[in-house]
Amino acid sequence: MSPPDYSALGFKEIIVTLENQILVILINRAKFRNTFNEGIVTEMLQIFDLADRDDRVRAVILTAEHTAPAFCSGADINAGWDILWKSDSQDEHAHRDSGGWGSMAVYRCRKITISAVNGHAAGVGATASQLPFDFRFAWAGAKITYPFVRRGISPEATATYLLPRLLGHSRANSLLLTGATVTPTSPYIEALYHRILPTREEVFPAAKAFAEELVANSSQVDIAYAKGLLQHPGDSIEENHLLDSRAIRLLAASPDGEEGVKSFKERRLPKFTDTLSNHTTSFYPWWRRLDVKHLRTKL
Amino acid sequence: MSPPDYSALGFKEIIVTLENQILVILINRAKFRNTFNEGIVTEMLQIFDLADRDDRVRAVILTAEHTAPAFCSGADINAGWDILWKSDSQDEHAHRDSGGWGSMAVYRCRKITISAVNGHAAGVGATASQLPFDFRFAWAGAKITYPFVRRGISPEATATYLLPRLLGHSRANSLLLTGATVTPTSPYIEALYHRILPTREEVFPAAKAFAEELVANSSQVDIAYAKGLLQHPGDSIEENHLLDSRAIRLLAASPDGEEGVKSFKERRLPKFTDTLSNHTTSFYPWWRRLDVKHLRTKL
Amino acid sequence: MSPPDYSALGFKEIIVTLENQILVILINRAKFRNTFNEGIVTEMLQIFDLADRDDRVRAVILTAEHTAPAFCSGADINAGWDILWKSDSQDEHAHRDSGGWGSMAVYRCRKITISAVNGHAAGVGATASQLPFDFRFAWAGAKITYPFVRRGISPEATATYLLPRLLGHSRANSLLLTGATVTPTSPYIEALYHRILPTREEVFPAAKAFAEELVANSSQVDIAYAKGLLQHPGDSIEENHLLDSRAIRLLAASPDGEEGVKSFKERRLPKFTDTLSNHTTSFYPWWRRLDVKHLRTKL
Repeated sequence: MSPPDYSALGFKEIIVTLENQILVILINRAKFRNTFNEGIVTEMLQIFDLADRDDRVRAVILTAEHTAPAFCSGADINAGWDILWKSDSQDEHAHRDSGGWGSMAVYRCRKITISAVNGHAAGVGATASQLPFDFRFAWAGAKITYPFVRRGISPEATATYLLPRLLGHSRANSLLLTGATVTPTSPYIEALYHRILPTREEVFPAAKAFAEELVANSSQVDIAYAKGLLQHPGDSIEENHLLDSRAIRLLAASPDGEEGVKSFKERRLPKFTDTLSNHTTSFYPWWRRLDVKHLRTKL
Repeated sequence: MSPPDYSALGFKEIIVTLENQILVILINRAKFRNTFNEGIVTEMLQIFDLADRDDRVRAVILTAEHTAPAFCSGADINAGWDILWKSDSQDEHAHRDSGGWGSMAVYRCRKITISAVNGHAAGVGATASQLPFDFRFAWAGAKITYPFVRRGISPEATATYLLPRLLGHSRANSLLLTGATVTPTSPYIEALYHRILPTREEVFPAAKAFAEELVANSSQVDIAYAKGLLQHPGDSIEENHLLDSRAIRLLAASPDGEEGVKSFKERRLPKFTDTLSNHTTSFYPWWRRLDVKHLRTKL
Repeated sequence: MSPPDYSALGFKEIIVTLENQILVILINRAKFRNTFNEGIVTEMLQIFDLADRDDRVRAVILTAEHTAPAFCSGADINAGWDILWKSDSQDEHAHRDSGGWGSMAVYRCRKITISAVNGHAAGVGATASQLPFDFRFAWAGAKITYPFVRRGISPEATATYLLPRLLGHSRANSLLLTGATVTPTSPYIEALYHRILPTREEVFPAAKAFAEELVANSSQVDIAYAKGLLQHPGDSIEENHLLDSRAIRLLAASPDGEEGVKSFKERRLPKFTDTLSNHTTSFYPWWRRLDVKHLRTKL
């Protein structure tokens, strides 16, 4: 893949910039309260796929203008629930929730992913725009809500998979089964956030400073393996031991593994240069990905 | 099913009332410290099964008199451990822990379930009477204990399944492996509680007010689907996406889904009227329930 | 097995003492910052296996001198990453992370296990030396770090299995994906600790007092079953019900189960005398252990 020129991709609903190995995605629909429509979903899927494959990208931050009415007010449902699903046929089995597409695209991205929630967030603004990310930074005053049971539907965007894993079922119930509106310092949700900032304007700079430090001092390949082990652990401690032993063996013998030991002995910060496209083994990824396409059967 | 008259069911160990779509179950054994005997287990299984199937019921609250010596002091073991198991034969493989029966009955109830812990709780008063519920409200002064390893047995009532899922294994160890007595504000257990109230008399009213608001503004069918997705998620993010996509597709096209969009556009509170017995699909439930009956094999 | 004389086992890297049914393991490498080398790994595997099988042992505490430079500064990597894996051949598939060996030995030990972290902890000092234990006590000033992604490798010692189960994925990400240094009162990690003490010298005595009380008042067999149910629960609430019903049935009829009821009725503390080597059933353990040995195939 030749590296894309992010400024030339013609995105309409998002603004994308790459600087210091950090790709920043700005939701650019302030006049629509940064709601999700079909266009932004399509652009989000594209940008996270590109970010995953572009070696120059070591971290991705999703954010919004801190002066916008909201970080993301959910799906634009003025035309009904259609935005929530995507179909390749009229068959009702073929429908796929577009929020879930977004969640999976972020979750699969092998780079550091950060959601900088500098405004209110509802529905997909609290699910796909936050839960599949590695880290969440939030404004203390943000109103966060998972309104599904108060809107006639069930939780979308794989929130029922991600939220209990992130926080445990007690807190997930308090959020997903009530549809209540909370702020990040609520005991129901505060463990979701890596950092909570007092003002909207501090959120993105804090996320960016965090990303810059981590990007400068961590290995792109290590991050991908660590994410893989966390997302796809063994089913038992023994199976996990087989997986992480294999991962460590491969990484220890890699350029970054050697630099790790060398810099330690020389009492200096490491300088990791290995990249995911250079790094190919028969081991990674060790999990199988379920195909979610609708499989039409001919009769 | 014709709707039952709860006042005419002849319960002895519990008092049951249905008001404003909320079924209140009061443990009526204050003179026995609200301990569980065989009678109350039988009545609890019956009432949670009825609550699950009666469309008029949208929430269930379990509580006790706030003047009783305890919310529930555990199983009545004056006659030994027999209360803890139920058998349909002398075969030791046939024994089933009755606390586990209680936990499963509550866990399977598709309505909002709330435990209002307005007094001390031990053993089954801390397991089946709390852990399978969606929400727990507690008196800050309640003494809570999981005494099993100090009583010669192992944790019962599926607590080893439920508690780590609710709180994570670190906190579950601190509770189940120590048998220590804690109060709800202890860091080991506080994440278990949706709300902690300063006095015994405030616990039930707080739970009831919470239930009334939620019942008035949520969909019975949505709650059942949300609980199903939380209890029976996919094994991977992809599998969860297939499940929640299907659920959303069905619900969005349902009467409550249409009312959800309509009320949103009309900027008013929704009025959900769909009920579980009206709502039948080949999709829900999507999980298989393991049969726990003892299977006698003839030789 | 005839009970070992722990003072005569010739350990070099650890000092082991058995007193009041509590086995104390002191990391004895203060002049090397208590780093792990091949010798200490071998000794740790041996001692946890012995502790598991010796009926006289009811609890195990791992600690270090509170005047040492660190509780454990990780693996000794002055000779490179070799310490991290163990092989029985040159085949790269045969490598096994030695930290994972340690984690599994502790995790499988059927007695109460406590890590008394009375100094700084990095790498294996924060993984195998803490995560597989039932309880962790820590000095509030201890610097704790999981530095892997900043050292050129991925997280080892089954940390990617254990840490998310203990704390949930949100906190596990904040620790394992950042490589940041935190202290025990950090919100990222505090739920990991059963108790946090203000000074280094208070950590071990607090852990010992906790162990003494628990050992005196709990059943050795109950603890083993409770740990088994927590580590190997059912895949569903129903399957867990089958497991804990069977466990309770067996334990209720055991000497400790009878003493539990008897002491309750006599309003006195129980005196449990049953031991794991006396207790044999066809039920325990109910799980299968994956063999992690390298299986050489002849062609």
